[in-house]
Amino acid sequence: MADYQAPLREMRFVLNEVFDAPALWASLPKVSENVDPETADAILEEAGKITSGVLAPINREGDEQGCHWNEGEVTTPDGFREAYQTLVEGGWNGLGGNPEFGGMGMPKTLVAQFEEMMQGANMSFGLAPMLTAGACVALNAHGSPELKEKYLPKLYSGEWSGAMDLTEPHAGTDLGIIRTKADPQDDGSYRITGTKIFITWGEHDMAENIVHLVLAKLPDAPKGPKGISMFLVPKFLVNEDGSLGERNQFGCGSLEKKMGIKASATCVMNYDGATGWLVGEPNKGLAAMFTMMNYERLGVGIQGLGAAEASLQSARAYANERTQSRAPKGAQQPDQAADPILVHPDVRRMLLTMKSFVEGGRAFSTYVAGWLDRAKYSDDDQQRQYADGMVALLTPVAKAFLTDRGLDTTILGQQVFGGHGFVREWGQEQLVRDCRITQIYEGTNGIQAMDLMGRKVVGSEGKLFELFAEDVTDFIEQNSSDATLRPYLEPLAAAVERLADVTELVLKQAGDNPEAIGAAAVDYLDMFGYTALAFMWAKMAKAAAGNAEGDTSGFYTGKLKTARFYFDRLLPRTVALGEGIRSGADAMMAPTVEEI
Amino acid sequence: MADYQAPLREMRFVLNEVFDAPALWASLPKVSENVDPETADAILEEAGKITSGVLAPINREGDEQGCHWNEGEVTTPDGFREAYQTLVEGGWNGLGGNPEFGGMGMPKTLVAQFEEMMQGANMSFGLAPMLTAGACVALNAHGSPELKEKYLPKLYSGEWSGAMDLTEPHAGTDLGIIRTKADPQDDGSYRITGTKIFITWGEHDMAENIVHLVLAKLPDAPKGPKGISMFLVPKFLVNEDGSLGERNQFGCGSLEKKMGIKASATCVMNYDGATGWLVGEPNKGLAAMFTMMNYERLGVGIQGLGAAEASLQSARAYANERTQSRAPKGAQQPDQAADPILVHPDVRRMLLTMKSFVEGGRAFSTYVAGWLDRAKYSDDDQQRQYADGMVALLTPVAKAFLTDRGLDTTILGQQVFGGHGFVREWGQEQLVRDCRITQIYEGTNGIQAMDLMGRKVVGSEGKLFELFAEDVTDFIEQNSSDATLRPYLEPLAAAVERLADVTELVLKQAGDNPEAIGAAAVDYLDMFGYTALAFMWAKMAKAAAGNAEGDTSGFYTGKLKTARFYFDRLLPRTVALGEGIRSGADAMMAPTVEEI
Repeated sequence: MADYQAPLREMRFVLNEVFDAPALWASLPKVSENVDPETADAILEEAGKITSGVLAPINREGDEQGCHWNEGEVTTPDGFREAYQTLVEGGWNGLGGNPEFGGMGMPKTLVAQFEEMMQGANMSFGLAPMLTAGACVALNAHGSPELKEKYLPKLYSGEWSGAMDLTEPHAGTDLGIIRTKADPQDDGSYRITGTKIFITWGEHDMAENIVHLVLAKLPDAPKGPKGISMFLVPKFLVNEDGSLGERNQFGCGSLEKKMGIKASATCVMNYDGATGWLVGEPNKGLAAMFTMMNYERLGVGIQGLGAAEASLQSARAYANERTQSRAPKGAQQPDQAADPILVHPDVRRMLLTMKSFVEGGRAFSTYVAGWLDRAKYSDDDQQRQYADGMVALLTPVAKAFLTDRGLDTTILGQQVFGGHGFVREWGQEQLVRDCRITQIYEGTNGIQAMDLMGRKVVGSEGKLFELFAEDVTDFIEQNSSDATLRPYLEPLAAAVERLADVTELVLKQAGDNPEAIGAAAVDYLDMFGYTALAFMWAKMAKAAAGNAEGDTSGFYTGKLKTARFYFDRLLPRTVALGEGIRSGADAMMAPTVEEI
Repeated sequence: MADYQAPLREMRFVLNEVFDAPALWASLPKVSENVDPETADAILEEAGKITSGVLAPINREGDEQGCHWNEGEVTTPDGFREAYQTLVEGGWNGLGGNPEFGGMGMPKTLVAQFEEMMQGANMSFGLAPMLTAGACVALNAHGSPELKEKYLPKLYSGEWSGAMDLTEPHAGTDLGIIRTKADPQDDGSYRITGTKIFITWGEHDMAENIVHLVLAKLPDAPKGPKGISMFLVPKFLVNEDGSLGERNQFGCGSLEKKMGIKASATCVMNYDGATGWLVGEPNKGLAAMFTMMNYERLGVGIQGLGAAEASLQSARAYANERTQSRAPKGAQQPDQAADPILVHPDVRRMLLTMKSFVEGGRAFSTYVAGWLDRAKYSDDDQQRQYADGMVALLTPVAKAFLTDRGLDTTILGQQVFGGHGFVREWGQEQLVRDCRITQIYEGTNGIQAMDLMGRKVVGSEGKLFELFAEDVTDFIEQNSSDATLRPYLEPLAAAVERLADVTELVLKQAGDNPEAIGAAAVDYLDMFGYTALAFMWAKMAKAAAGNAEGDTSGFYTGKLKTARFYFDRLLPRTVALGEGIRSGADAMMAPTVEEI
């Protein structure tokens, strides 16, 4: 298979030419004090070297070896410890972290590119820095000053890693019914008792210490989601001077055998009176967890994107090399026995669909990251409020749509390889298996759709949707005089209108029938995602149009042609989705248990 | 996970109530001499016992163990030899075989049900009888009387198994460029030399002998697909008295490591001057292979269907047992901490989508099998000709659409399980991995679409499509006075009209531009498949409607409600597909190599 190469040219296009990220950074004082365009570009370049040169080469063999459990100790595949150390030395774990505690304070728009490279190069490995970064976000937002001083610098440096302990055997989506208990002690600490499952990188041999953020219930906690608290529970207790003390009372009981991300450790964690400290307010653990979750959810979307990019790179290379049959209009390489399969319309359909999703997806993840940056760093109240709304609205779309299309893309990439795609040595099938989990964890994509349709769209009575629609229509209006953009703007306008109609319809349905939300949710998120990608392709077409004339590299003209493919072939899916939603909840709810 | 149970009730519904298979069988003398409704039902019952009781229990562990290669010998997972022996004792390998040589002569409509059970219970295992049956079809149609007498009885009994050797490292889809050679010998045999890859069950320890049908080129063969011949090459040469003689000069060089169907052996076969015999005419091997392929292609479609049924059974059981969160309209089990997840609209969406594809798919595979039976056994020339046309048209749809929706279904089934779906022990992820190959082998689904759009639809100038459209419109007309069927017939009529419009359009496009066929192909096959399933659901609704009143089992009313779900939620996809096709080939063909 083609070696993974960080798509730096594509990232620079999105950052500099589509979104003008340098201008955004300059407008946010807390960002501009840490980064300028040259620094950002140097970070991109270095990130490309490390991910392509260090993480990608151990991806395939890591999948074959997996992690191994022995008496509670977990051994990682060959090369993982060394690769982790390389990331620690480069300070990559703290790229987006709070500078007050040793983080580098880089904006999400930039960090998102690093994340994509890391996840595209090696998703199993990438989960470790990702979980650590997520734990840091929660700790930074909700931890006491003491906890932050004690833990954040080591987490940002990567000497210690982070883990999030939510799920229990009987409680996944429904965290309100967790049973893990936290008993308060006289010294202000808590004794944590219970079992957590599906804990990613809950135990391993890459870092000196592992800091778990554990959801548990206090003795007097109210029932349900309002009775959950968050605790910090380190593998090794930490002495006053910051050195490591005794082993805490919990451990890894076993590892799950999984379909993919096999080189990552998915742990059962048994807490047996472990010592922990409260993070944030009692009974407000779920809110604290969501601070992290919103951040992680974009990160999971980016995992889907990373896998899709890796698959596209391999499939494109293979389609250029593999010869089989002749082009429909006659031999293109008459001196060879057959033509490269890229001549066949259906192979082009597959590659262009992949390219549409990958490049559109990258623009979308960067667009969402831009709103995260404004929400976090803007000192303009109105802008921050607008950005908060956009983040709330777009996060579930980014998580679910990028991972759903990520799976589609990796499956297409595998299909381009024919039988060779099913054989392990080529690596395409691993990308499918790895990508599959991204639709499931951090809230299944069905849950993301409920969050979008229920909490965000219906919950705001459509106001959050209006923010997005406004951004699209502003763009259309600003560019309405540009004739070259008309082929993209007209179908985009129609798509956003279709989405607005359906939004209004579901708002109405939901007033009479609470089941209407769940019945519409997944199709609505899909429709939203395809519309958002149409917006991204229109923005990319605008950025490319000015440079297309005389472009001999094919980069800019390729953008315009892919945009056209997207509008011709993929955007029409919104029509079918809209029709399905219109039919309402009855067909779904009418069958009895026996009838399903 | 729920144990696989052969869906006998569903199969009886399709056979007896939807298609009245007993009447079809009675109308075909060569069928009715071998089977009556009672025999057929006894075979179904027994097939259910063997597949559920013998094949399903070794499926999960077979995936974990895989096959092992040692010095050319291949060892199968625990229990596979014994299970194979059970099938041999029951004569299951020859169920559809020619009675003249020991086959049971059962019609495909019945055999298809057995195939679905076998593939649903254990796809890796099921490939062995499937390949054997395919080899028998080719041998029975094209072999000399001597070859047939010598080999068919042992293949039908299953004492010997069959394998098909087509692919070479550089030649998969494009068999015209194979390099394996066949040198004629004075005794009428041939010396076969070359390397074949991806040979399913090419070597194993379950049968005494393995009979390979190998594609190779004679010394004076014309270039390309018209220079391919087929040879029978047994692992052990067979003496005059039928006993096994010396080991032939070929062997298994290695096994592929694969994403799924891990319990099956996928072999590299090295032919080193092996002794073989010509099957059929020189240079007509591809046509002989297609006799088998058409048969196998429905069989592969049925593999997708079998995996989908297995996934549905598990997901439905899980959705009834797993409790998580509350129903949108309030608690359904207030005494429990949460409700079964089946209360949630989105879980219902997933299960009803699965059910739509599985039950619609079963009806469709049986419908196609009915045309195969008429094509093979009818003594009415006109009926046989019509049936031949339907088989040619529908075979690629059955292969590709049933496997594409098969994958969709297994992915949904995995999603119902949430994180548990990603963990190996539950079995849902294995179904996804196993099902994935069905979209790739026996001609990728892209190749099926080219066959449908190019050779069948455009190749017949639309005449084959007319046969199908006629069957649908006849049904609509015959039932137009039945008001209860109107909700199904009206959208069905619209769908078939949309498909006819697009067919006409592509016929026109293809006249000017040969690339139009490939550009439309996959979307067209999809659109065809969704329309065909609408036809099936309308037929099932008709069969169910008469029994729905007073039905307390939910079986018949469930059919009507699922039909409604299909028409409301899934059939609209044809609108989007049609729009995409309408945009033509330009968006696909315009990009240069650099622009993709």
